[in-house]
Order: sequence, then C-alpha cells, then structure tokens
Amino acid sequence: MNSDEFRIRGKEIIDYIADYMENIQDLRVTPDVEPGYLKSLLPKEAPIRAENWDSIFKDFESKILPGVTHWQHPRFHAYFPAGNSYPSILGEILSSGLGIVGFSWAASPSCTELETIVLDWLGRMLNLPNFLLPFPDEIPNGHVNGNIESSNKEELEKENDDVMIDPKPVGGGVVLGSASECILVALLSARANVLRNLKSQHPFVEDGVLLSKLVMYTSKLAHSCVEKAGMIAMVKIRLLDPDENFSLRGLCVEKAIKDDKSNGLIPFFVSCTIGTTSCCSFDNLIEVGNVCKREDVYFHVKDKYMLTKALSVDPIYLRYKEMDKAIDYRHWGIALSRRFRSLKMWFTIRSYGIEGLQKYIREHVRQAKKFESLVLGDTRFEILGKVILGLVCFRLKGPNALSQNLLFMLNDSGKLHMIPSMLEDKYVIRFCVNAEKSSDDDMIEAWELIKSYADQILKQHEEDNPPVVDSIDIPEITSKLRRMRFGISKMVSDPRINGQKKYRRTATTLRFFSDSSKYFARKCSIVEKSDEDLE
Amino acid sequence: MNSDEFRIRGKEIIDYIADYMENIQDLRVTPDVEPGYLKSLLPKEAPIRAENWDSIFKDFESKILPGVTHWQHPRFHAYFPAGNSYPSILGEILSSGLGIVGFSWAASPSCTELETIVLDWLGRMLNLPNFLLPFPDEIPNGHVNGNIESSNKEELEKENDDVMIDPKPVGGGVVLGSASECILVALLSARANVLRNLKSQHPFVEDGVLLSKLVMYTSKLAHSCVEKAGMIAMVKIRLLDPDENFSLRGLCVEKAIKDDKSNGLIPFFVSCTIGTTSCCSFDNLIEVGNVCKREDVYFHVKDKYMLTKALSVDPIYLRYKEMDKAIDYRHWGIALSRRFRSLKMWFTIRSYGIEGLQKYIREHVRQAKKFESLVLGDTRFEILGKVILGLVCFRLKGPNALSQNLLFMLNDSGKLHMIPSMLEDKYVIRFCVNAEKSSDDDMIEAWELIKSYADQILKQHEEDNPPVVDSIDIPEITSKLRRMRFGISKMVSDPRINGQKKYRRTATTLRFFSDSSKYFARKCSIVEKSDEDLE
Repeated sequence: MNSDEFRIRGKEIIDYIADYMENIQDLRVTPDVEPGYLKSLLPKEAPIRAENWDSIFKDFESKILPGVTHWQHPRFHAYFPAGNSYPSILGEILSSGLGIVGFSWAASPSCTELETIVLDWLGRMLNLPNFLLPFPDEIPNGHVNGNIESSNKEELEKENDDVMIDPKPVGGGVVLGSASECILVALLSARANVLRNLKSQHPFVEDGVLLSKLVMYTSKLAHSCVEKAGMIAMVKIRLLDPDENFSLRGLCVEKAIKDDKSNGLIPFFVSCTIGTTSCCSFDNLIEVGNVCKREDVYFHVKDKYMLTKALSVDPIYLRYKEMDKAIDYRHWGIALSRRFRSLKMWFTIRSYGIEGLQKYIREHVRQAKKFESLVLGDTRFEILGKVILGLVCFRLKGPNALSQNLLFMLNDSGKLHMIPSMLEDKYVIRFCVNAEKSSDDDMIEAWELIKSYADQILKQHEEDNPPVVDSIDIPEITSKLRRMRFGISKMVSDPRINGQKKYRRTATTLRFFSDSSKYFARKCSIVEKSDEDLE
Repeated sequence: MNSDEFRIRGKEIIDYIADYMENIQDLRVTPDVEPGYLKSLLPKEAPIRAENWDSIFKDFESKILPGVTHWQHPRFHAYFPAGNSYPSILGEILSSGLGIVGFSWAASPSCTELETIVLDWLGRMLNLPNFLLPFPDEIPNGHVNGNIESSNKEELEKENDDVMIDPKPVGGGVVLGSASECILVALLSARANVLRNLKSQHPFVEDGVLLSKLVMYTSKLAHSCVEKAGMIAMVKIRLLDPDENFSLRGLCVEKAIKDDKSNGLIPFFVSCTIGTTSCCSFDNLIEVGNVCKREDVYFHVKDKYMLTKALSVDPIYLRYKEMDKAIDYRHWGIALSRRFRSLKMWFTIRSYGIEGLQKYIREHVRQAKKFESLVLGDTRFEILGKVILGLVCFRLKGPNALSQNLLFMLNDSGKLHMIPSMLEDKYVIRFCVNAEKSSDDDMIEAWELIKSYADQILKQHEEDNPPVVDSIDIPEITSKLRRMRFGISKMVSDPRINGQKKYRRTATTLRFFSDSSKYFARKCSIVEKSDEDLE
C-alpha cells in the first residue's frame, strides 16, 4: 500500500469510527454468535496474492464486526469502563504511525520521557504522596508530604504518622500492558527483596527452601490476577475475609500475619484493592498499611529501586551510569519491547484537562446514584454493597435463581449487557456506567428493560413455582466452601457464566465448587485455615 | 472532543503520518537530545482546563517529535525491523476505534476467533508441523505431518522420526505483548509440568525444594529475555557455548544435561533461537530437539494444554465446559486485558498476500547480501558470522577500539544508526536492513558514510597511534570472563553503549565485566562450569 492509498483508506476509517460511535446504540450490545462461527466464514489459508482493500474491509464489516461485543455501547454495563475517547484514539494512531519501540531511553528518548512526565501528572492528579511521584517536589524539611491538602494531611498524619512520613523518593511511574502485569511485577519486586534479606541471614539455605516459607495476603474479593501472580511467583497465598462492607481490615491482616509467623512462615506481601471487581468496595489502606509497617511486610506500593533490582538483567549499567538521568523502562516490567503509550494519555489529559476528567467521572457516579434510586424505588429489588463510584450491585429479593435467570434473559436479548457477581451467598447483577456519553436516559432505558424482564420472571415464578434449584443455597455445600471466592470475581470475567444457562444445573455447580477447592489447595498452596481462626 | 472534530483531526493525523513517512529520510535518524530534555519543555502539572487541539499538537511536533528515534527511517539499521506498514497501521486504528477488551471469548468473540484464524494462517505460512497448528488438518493415519513438503518431509523423517511424529494436536496460537512474555509463559508452562510430575513422585517434598533442583539451558547468544524469564521463574540457568558458527549444537546440550543429572539436578527446559540478536545465527533445532526427546526435557515449542494448565486460575471451567469450542486467551499469557491485535495481522497479510510478504523478506535479504558484497570489497573490513537473513555483522580489522570508535562517530552524526555486538572477543557493528521501502541506494549510501568515517578513524589511528586502549583485549580479563555473554546481546539493547563514549575508558569496562560476573553468580544461580567441561 502506498501513501496515496493510505491517505484515502485512513480517512475512510476515521469516518467509519465516527459513524460507528454515532450509531452504536442501534446495534445489539453482544453478538448473536456461537463459538467457532468465524472459522467457516473466512478462508482456511492466507491469500497467496495481495487482495484489494475494499474486499478485505467488506469481510471485516460483514463477518468480523458481527462477532464484536460493543464495549462503547451505551447499554454495555459489564466489567468496568474500557476508557476509550477520541483524543486517546488519535494518540494511538500517532503512536502506531511512528512505529517505534521504546525499551530503553536511547531507543526513543521522548517515548520514555513523556511517559514519566504524564505519569507524574497523573500522580499529582491522584494526590499521591510526594515521595511516590516520578519527579518529587523538593521539600525543605524533607519530611512531610507536599501534595496532600492540608485538612486531609493533618488527619492522615494524626492517624498514621508512622506510615506517611518517608522523605526518600522511591516513586516513579510506568505504563505496563495490563493490571495483571503490574501486580506480578510488584510481587516479584517484594519477593526479590525478602529473599535478598533472608539470604544474607541464611546464606547456606537454598533459595527454593526460603521461597517455600513465603506467604502473601489479599482479600477474597481481590481480582484473580493477584492469585495468578502468586502462582507465577510460586509463593503461598492466603485469601482473607473482608468485613461486612466487603472491605479488608487491618485486624484481619494482622491476625493472619501473626498466626503464620508463629507457624514458622514468612509473611512478605499484602495486596489491597481500591474498588474491587465484584462490588467496587475499598480495602482499608490506612489500617492495613499500619499493620504492614509494624510487621515489616511489603505493602503493595511501588518502589522503583526494589522494582528494578528485581527485574534487571544488567543492573550494573544502571548502578554506575547516570541512573538518575535516564530511565530504561524495560527494567520496570516483563516486556522489553514497548509502544509509545503515553501519547494516548498525553492527548487525553490535555484535551479534557483535569476539570474535564473530574466532570466525566463525577457524571458517571451521579448516573450510578440515579440508577440506584430507580432500583430502590422498586421493593422487589435490593442493592448490596455501597454505591461509591459508577457500579451498582442489585438483585431480585428471594432465591438466587431469580436474579440469575433475569441476567441470562437480559444478556440473551442482546439489548443490555451486564455480568454477575457473588457477595457472600448472594447472586448479584453488576450494573456499571461505562459509556463516555452516557446519560440519565440510558439509566432509565436500562431500568425499564430490567423491570420488564423481571415482571416476566416473577410472573412465571409464581405461576409455575418452577423446579429451578437455587444453585448456591444447597445444603451439601458447606459453609466453608460457600465462602471461598470462586463464585465471586472469578465469574466476572468468565464467558460461560455470562448469559449462558449451564450453571443452572445443580450437579454441575456442586462439582464446580468442590473441584475448585481441591484445585486451589493443590495449585496455589493455600494456607488452609478455618474461617473461625480469622475472626 | 465530538465526532465532528474527531473527523477533522483524525484525517489531519492520517496526512501527517503519510507526510512523515514520505519525508522521513530528511530527518536525523537519532535525536540530538540529552536525558531529561523534555521535562523542562512541558508543564509541570496537567492542565486544569481543556486545551485546544492545535496547541497540544504543536507541542507534540515541536517538543516530543524531536526526541524520537525514527525506527522507520531508511538509515535506521539498529536492532531488528519493527514491522510497521500502512495496512498494519489501519488495523491498529480500527482496533483502537472499537476499543474492546478481549480477555475471554464472550468479551468479544471475533477478537478471539480472528486471532486464532490468522495465527493458523501464519503457522501454515511458516510450514509448522500440522499438530502445532491451531486448526490441524485431519490426517487419516494420524501419524505424519501434513504440511511439510514431501522432499523436506522425507529428509526430516529419515533424520528424526522420533522427534517429528506426534499425532496428538497440542498446538495453538496467541499474540502476546512481547517476546519476553512468550518466553516466560513457555518457561512457566514447563515448570508447572515438571513440578506436577515430581510432586506425584515425591508428594512430601516442598515445591520450593523441588524448584531448587530445576535447570534450564540456552545459548550464550540467546536474548537476555531468556535469562529474565529464568530469574522470574526462579530456576537455575546454564548458558551454553555455541559452536564456531554461533549455533547451539546437540552434543553441547546433551553433555550439560548429563552432567547436571549426575549432580542430582533436574534439567527441564531448553530454549533455542532462530536468528540470534547478536548475529542472526540459528541454533540446531533438529539436534537439540532429539537430545530433549531422549532426555525427556521440555523443548521450547508451545503446547496449549501444558500452557493453560500452568496459567489458569480457574481451569475447572475450561475442563468441563466446551473447552474445544471457545478459547479464553487470558489463560495463554500473563495479561487479562488484551486488545484486538489480530486486526493488524489480518489487514497486513491480506493486503500483501503470502507472495507479497515473501517478496518483502527476500528483498531485504538480497539487500543485506548487497551490503555484504560492498563490505567484502574493502580489505580494511571483515564480516563475522554468516549473512543468512537481513543482518550483516562487520568490523574494521584490527583492535576493537577502531570499530567501536567508528560506530560512535556514525551514531553521533545522526546520519545512520546501528548498534554493536560482541562475537567471541570481537566487537562487531550490526547492520540490519529495516525500512519497508529500503533499496540498493540506501545500502550504497550507508556504505559510503561508513567508509568516509572509517577513512577518518584509520587516518587518525595512523597519525597519532592514539592511546585508545582496546577495551576488550585486556590481559587482566580472564578468558573465562571474556567468554561470558555480558558483552554480547546485553549491549544490543542498552542505550549507554549505543553512540556514547563512556565505554572507551578501560577501568569502566573492566569493572563492568567483573561486576557483571558477580551479579550473575548471585542473581541467576548460574550453574558454574568451566568452558572445558563443555567441549
């Protein structure tokens, strides 16, 4: 393809994207396709000869696009927002056009430098403590945090002066490919650090033996990527019970750490969540942070030195050569090759400004509260968890099967897309405000759809008193199994639970719970404790 | 930003990219900036209010672009090609516009399905054995490979019938974020498999203790990401000597495996390279594969079942639910979130066709041979390694400092960009044919530049007999240290070796070598063996 054709096709695609976004509400949210649908529609082998653009694009439109779930659709209320916007698309186009790879500073200096700068911006927008910023402000007494607003700061200091005061700048920022990679990288950093310390105390003990003593902690509501990181790092993982507001609390962490220490294990890492996938609950960072400080356990806040020590394959270069002058981001993650990702943030942040982004988030929160009020106005429904940001977890009162059937019907309709979650023993439907241009009308439209399907479900329930077994409230499942987290955030990202009917069958569900438990005990070396031990 | 403005700005960027590509040869290849140059040019904090596009874009052009290393420049001869093309940019734009996340089949079915399809195409284009394809052909006798051309097939079967025959389809394809992630994921898969087997034999031995016995192998010329994967997986890594053609051979691997087994260690993984970063040499897969088969060691060829077993956090779902019907790519790598990456491959493969891509690669190989002939025509130069694909490794005959200075001068000029490598004790300059529209003229132009700087270097060398110490040929560095690989592919991706002068100083170079050695012994738990043991 030459430049002239690129100019034509590129502009066509720009219009295509704008048209797509303008008319997306007329499409089904989820596609009506079965697994494997695409294979029979496309050629079995790549073409020998070049094909013309029109025929390739026609295939995209007629065969590929009908299999897309439309994440930008105003009635896509699943997962969390994908965060697309026109300026971010433009940033991506430019990044793609430059086609550079930014693994080291020299490989494309502004790729590295702009990333550090926009992440410093972001850190300031989030009001991170000064010592965690990539470019911390110089503070005369070198002691207090320069960024927290005074009222907030005083409160924090009063409660936690042992936690917040840290004059040594250890912060930085890097854009990794996924949250899973971020968690893994933080865990690897903590692992390398604790092993280095242990090795200096026990130089003749094999690394593997030391490794087998390490325990990490997270809430049962933490995302599954925390467990995945634990599997990869081969450390023991202990999933702790959150409190009645689905928040992990300091006392619970402290008790677990002390228990494990008394059993000869070495607690080394705690991962907390701000906005769990299941219900957007917040772990209590202040309490847990204080516990970690007292117990000398790595609390998941990134320390750039610990990080690069854990991941560099040639740290000698970094140690002796202008370390403070140039960053090589390849030492901050798994990947070597990396794109010019910061251009997306650069164009987005500047095009909206802090005020614009605040307005955007606040508007989504307001709409979630609006949706919450609609649900609360109907006594057949209840809401679980607090509506803090843009997520509402609701359910039909009564057996779980009612809400489960409601969700299946809604998702099968293609008119609305949501996913389930489990909070304690209750099946809830997650409604997330996602679309950039979402409005009150979208909330009302979604609610009307939900109500009309609920009418059908409840009517049928009354008429037939149907033999649908509540797949969760089964006596054979012990309280302990029920409280394990497999039914919770696991479900969130699994296709087979979203809108398909397989989990209505009791036997399957039972097998799922008991096998999962065995699997976990084997695979993750979970430190098994009865729930009573933690309370 | 609304759709109307997006249409305008998007089209401007399309033209901007086309203009950039049409005029890229007029820019410096590498930027003339110092670390930290960008921070002072951009605002310290993100803007409070939205800014207009023109002023944002002006900053991009005047401040960010001057810090870019132009990977698509016709005189960018560093690293390996970044593989950009107009159809791939268009695929990326569309992917960015759709803004979907494809972690599971349901999250966007065609995102998963198209990825499998284009990777099946790619597997067929590469003539992979049938059982490794995502969609293997059904073969009546279920025994032989259906894809290898008959002459080739017979030859392979004659030599290695124990290796090539495997009727069970275990293949598949997934696009991961980086080669480093691919290697890590393969290693984790092998680790999980060997630990599962060991655990069944030694159920009461701690995982960590078993882990401490595991050894992986790769060539000293393997990319540093293999070592990085070993660090993350916490297994011992042994770097083996390639032969005189820089190829890892079966006997060498076999000797190392047998030695380690006799010392009570458990060899479990071998990683070979087709086209090393240093000199594009090929390890001998046939020989090493046979050794791995005999010694029951995982040879790095992806097995989808082993892979998903190692990386799933909820394999129960996969085991009982339509596993063969839908793929969830989140179990094939580290990341959960993933983009619609296959669109780039889809548009590229169809726009060029197999013939077009073959022509593209062959043309680059032809140009590399052309460049090789230019170098060979000048008796002051020599070429190391075979020119197989698009890479030529050349040097000025005589002390390494001559070639080192030549490269520094060329890179400092901004007219040409190449990077160094070490082959045995010799410093070589890597010349890689990268640009899509590269021509013989570009080869000639690069060569004329190289020659003219070489004239200066050699003239000065004769005139001054200058006190430049050859940083490699220093008696204090023992033969063993010299043969370690730190000077080899490590250098390739390090900014501070590319065009900067720091490594001319002898003391620094010495420190670099000796510290690296200590670091490695500590960090990677290298199994130390003298070179003689391997020969």
